[in-house]
Amino acid sequence: MEKLFRAHLEKIITLTDEEFEYIKSHFSVMNFKRRDFLVRKGEKVTYVFWVISGLLKLNYVDDADKNHVVAFAMEDWWEGDYYAFFNQSSATMSLQALEDTQVLCMTLDSYNTLCREFHKMAYFFLEKANKGHISSQQRILELISTNAKERYDKLLNRYPVLFQRVSHTLIASYLGVTRETLSRLTAQ
Amino acid sequence: MEKLFRAHLEKIITLTDEEFEYIKSHFSVMNFKRRDFLVRKGEKVTYVFWVISGLLKLNYVDDADKNHVVAFAMEDWWEGDYYAFFNQSSATMSLQALEDTQVLCMTLDSYNTLCREFHKMAYFFLEKANKGHISSQQRILELISTNAKERYDKLLNRYPVLFQRVSHTLIASYLGVTRETLSRLTAQ
Repeated sequence: MEKLFRAHLEKIITLTDEEFEYIKSHFSVMNFKRRDFLVRKGEKVTYVFWVISGLLKLNYVDDADKNHVVAFAMEDWWEGDYYAFFNQSSATMSLQALEDTQVLCMTLDSYNTLCREFHKMAYFFLEKANKGHISSQQRILELISTNAKERYDKLLNRYPVLFQRVSHTLIASYLGVTRETLSRLTAQ
Repeated sequence: MEKLFRAHLEKIITLTDEEFEYIKSHFSVMNFKRRDFLVRKGEKVTYVFWVISGLLKLNYVDDADKNHVVAFAMEDWWEGDYYAFFNQSSATMSLQALEDTQVLCMTLDSYNTLCREFHKMAYFFLEKANKGHISSQQRILELISTNAKERYDKLLNRYPVLFQRVSHTLIASYLGVTRETLSRLTAQ
C-alpha cells in the first residue's frame, strides 16, 4: 500500500522519505465489506478517501426518492462528498462499497494541516482539485450535449474494466437512462 | 480595480502590500466590447480571466452544431476554458463578452510561478479549485435529478441579477430547454 500511495503522490510532487512519512501520518487505513457505507446521507462527513483496492459508488437520492449514480471510484482514485467535507456538514450523498474495499482516509484537520504546513501537498491537492473540476465540467458538457448512446460509448472506451465490475443497472443509472434503454444500446 | 482584486484575494488569504504588488505583476488588464471573443473555439488558450466588470458567456457547440451555454461569469468570478488552459491545447469552448467587459488575465506561466514560489497563492487557487469542483458537482446533480422548472427556480433564486442582464434565449440554453419551454415556465 505504501508504495502505491507514494507512487500516486510522486506522479505530481517528489518527496524525501521523511516527507512521505510525515504525509502518511495524516492518513489512516480503513477496510469495508461489499455493501458497507463509507458515507451515509444525512450523517456528518468526517473523511475523504483514496482507494487502495476495491470499488466505490457515490449515490444521490433525489426528492422523488430516485437513485442516481454520481460517480464510481476505483483503485488510485479520490472520492467523497466534497461539499459536505469542506463545509463540515451532513452528507447530501452516500458512498458505498461495491466490492470489499480498502481505503486511506483523511480528515479535514489533516487536510488543512498538510496544506498549511507543506507547500508541496497544497500543490498536490491543487493539481487534483483542478483535474476534478475539469472532469466535472467535461461531464456537464456530456450531459447537456450528448445522447445516452454517445455517453455509453465514451464510458466504455475510457473505463472498459468498469463494465466487468459493475452491474448494468448501475451503469444505466450513471448514464441517466433506464435499464431497458441500456439493454437496447448494448444490443446494437 | 486594485482594491476590488485585493479584497477578492483577501477573502481567503491575508497579504502585505509587497505581496499584493508581486501578485498583481503577474496579471494584466484587458478590455473587451460586447460580442468580442476572449477565447475562440479551436484557437490556443493563453489566459484565464477574473471579471472586474461586465458579463461573460462560456459556450459549447456540439457535433450537431447546437449551442450550449455552459456558464455565465459576472463581476468577481473566474472563468476560462480550464481544460485547454492547463493542457495548453486548443479551446473546446468559446468565451464571449455579453456586455462591455474588463478583466484581469493570467497566463499558465504566471499561474505556475505564483503557485510554485508563493505558498499563499497555491492555497488561494486550491480554495478556488475546490469551490469550482464542488459547484460543478452540484450542477451535475441538478442536471441528472431535477426538471427544468426546478433548475429555473434555483437559478433565479441564486442569481436574480442574471435575469436582468441576460436574454431569455441564453437562460434557456443554460437550463437545457427550448425558449418556448422557458416561456411556459416563466408564465406560471
